[in-house]
Amino acid sequence: MSAQPPYETLSWKSPAGASPFEELRGGRLTLIDQTRLPAEFLLMTCKTSEDVWRAIKQLSVRGAPAIGIAAAYGVCLGIQPLFAGANRPTRGDLIAAVEKTAAYLATSRPTAVNLFWALDRMKARAAAMPDAESDRIAAALMSEAKTIHDEDRLLCRRIGRFGANLIKDGDTLLTHCNAGALATADYGTALGVFYAAQEAGKKISVYADETRPLLQGARLTAWELAAHGIDVTLICDSMAAMLMRRKKIDAVFVGADRIAANGDVANKIGTYSVAVAARAHGVPFYVAAPFSTFDLTLSDGSQIPIEQRDPEEIRRGFGRQTAPDGIKIYNPAFDVTPAELVSGIVTEKGVITPVDAGEIRRFIQTE
Amino acid sequence: MSAQPPYETLSWKSPAGASPFEELRGGRLTLIDQTRLPAEFLLMTCKTSEDVWRAIKQLSVRGAPAIGIAAAYGVCLGIQPLFAGANRPTRGDLIAAVEKTAAYLATSRPTAVNLFWALDRMKARAAAMPDAESDRIAAALMSEAKTIHDEDRLLCRRIGRFGANLIKDGDTLLTHCNAGALATADYGTALGVFYAAQEAGKKISVYADETRPLLQGARLTAWELAAHGIDVTLICDSMAAMLMRRKKIDAVFVGADRIAANGDVANKIGTYSVAVAARAHGVPFYVAAPFSTFDLTLSDGSQIPIEQRDPEEIRRGFGRQTAPDGIKIYNPAFDVTPAELVSGIVTEKGVITPVDAGEIRRFIQTE
Repeated sequence: MSAQPPYETLSWKSPAGASPFEELRGGRLTLIDQTRLPAEFLLMTCKTSEDVWRAIKQLSVRGAPAIGIAAAYGVCLGIQPLFAGANRPTRGDLIAAVEKTAAYLATSRPTAVNLFWALDRMKARAAAMPDAESDRIAAALMSEAKTIHDEDRLLCRRIGRFGANLIKDGDTLLTHCNAGALATADYGTALGVFYAAQEAGKKISVYADETRPLLQGARLTAWELAAHGIDVTLICDSMAAMLMRRKKIDAVFVGADRIAANGDVANKIGTYSVAVAARAHGVPFYVAAPFSTFDLTLSDGSQIPIEQRDPEEIRRGFGRQTAPDGIKIYNPAFDVTPAELVSGIVTEKGVITPVDAGEIRRFIQTE
Repeated sequence: MSAQPPYETLSWKSPAGASPFEELRGGRLTLIDQTRLPAEFLLMTCKTSEDVWRAIKQLSVRGAPAIGIAAAYGVCLGIQPLFAGANRPTRGDLIAAVEKTAAYLATSRPTAVNLFWALDRMKARAAAMPDAESDRIAAALMSEAKTIHDEDRLLCRRIGRFGANLIKDGDTLLTHCNAGALATADYGTALGVFYAAQEAGKKISVYADETRPLLQGARLTAWELAAHGIDVTLICDSMAAMLMRRKKIDAVFVGADRIAANGDVANKIGTYSVAVAARAHGVPFYVAAPFSTFDLTLSDGSQIPIEQRDPEEIRRGFGRQTAPDGIKIYNPAFDVTPAELVSGIVTEKGVITPVDAGEIRRFIQTE
């Protein structure tokens, strides 16, 4: 008889099947393969930490919170083989396996802050049990991974509830990129606001920017909103301003990659263009993000480095060459929207408005 | 001995090979097949009016002026078979062939105003020679087609010269879509301004919006500017505002599809978004277009109908499906930029500024 890893059986489904994590059952992590969306809805099963590494690397799972959660479960999968033999592993063997798995998973996407944060949390949990047997530590690690998962779900629901108060029945909203269920545990930040408004009985319509160059809006947001039964219309990024001029947009909600101490917001490239158009047309522009997104070590957005991505994403983004070889291409991954263009930041503790250094400090201090 | 059509031999090359019309020689029209750019530079030879019809229909030749010129030459090709026999055709046969060819070519792109304008001009030329023999009429038609071709070239050079005065040595400019040599006889309107600035010895750099959904900026403008030796960098449409915020853009130049009497400008979708960003950052926004683009029967831009195009251009634009089936897609072909966002309209007679109904009227009256 082998020593089964002491994971309890989990079976969790998103209401509309739009979570990246379909279930974790019997030591298997099942993920939506986001690289196949929207053409195919495929679940991939990760049985080993190598499977999780690959899923993160190839963007089958993406979005900062979702990557952190997948990595945490990946640590649990990484220690699983130790329990396959007849004997319980020693505490030392287990800790070594945790460290090794965490170091390995950290190489999957070296720039993802949530990845390191989640792996550090898993390592700290094991280290905090110096006198425990290996099976108790393994159970605690599984519990920690689930806690990370649950915390994100809770956080998003809170953000959603606060954000939904900003939406009126019948509103038409605009979003950019994918700050939704697919990027988080199951509910999303910006899209979580839409889900919460819908759950509160408000009838809404959403325009989704396709979000060049990687088309997360076309591939993921449009799919996800439709899966949740929300009336969604896809547009090219360049059409948002025209819709605002025709008074079709009541408010904009986007996510954030990083927020500086003064409220400047780094988010997917194109966000700033939407914010400029929103201001020009008097349309409220909201950012939905948890406190963990704030980086108070940066006084303003000019200190946020702008990552340059592969020009081939633009030249050959979807299988066909659409720009000449040898042409210079500028491909920044994100841009910075200055605080003065942000009407409010929707957090798990409420809406920060006006957005400035003082108000952000007050909000975080009262936490 | 067969009666050769009395066309003189033409051999004309654009300085950088970026004209849609490489040459017209011995009754053959050679065109750059723009559908193959930028992956391939292919010349297609039109020997018959059917070849020209197909070239227009399948967008091998595109851009309002270029379509008009191709159609005019198409009429010449259409009457060519009448001269293949031993006898000169009668005047009646020739006029009938002109009418039939023109009616046929008019069906290639039913919404292209320049197409009808050029065909009407060819028919009028034939009709204005009631006593002439058929070979004299054929020669006059060839001359008329060349005149249409030359006029456009001249027009673009004049626009270029006036526009170049607005550009300083060392400027970095932005353009949207393709208002260049490929859309005209050989020089372009907005891009003609850049070529003229370069010819005047000014060193310039250009950012080209890729221009979703059909990517004319990526496929054509980037290719064309590089072919002319201009320093060009391709960006996604959503990046323009960010570049303006970083003070990288000194001025914007775009073309126009139609301009109302008050100066409101209809142009490729996304133009308005650029104009809004330009105003927000204090960047001058210029429109380069000939007088023929003004439609004085429309008092303002709200009267310009917005053509909706096939959603599949966005859903499957690059050969791969990038948005879910069944998702609503909004795909307007162009938008309207209000006159108050336009710093000036560069015409063949000079720069109209400020842009308002009175100034436009004065400019056109002094013509």
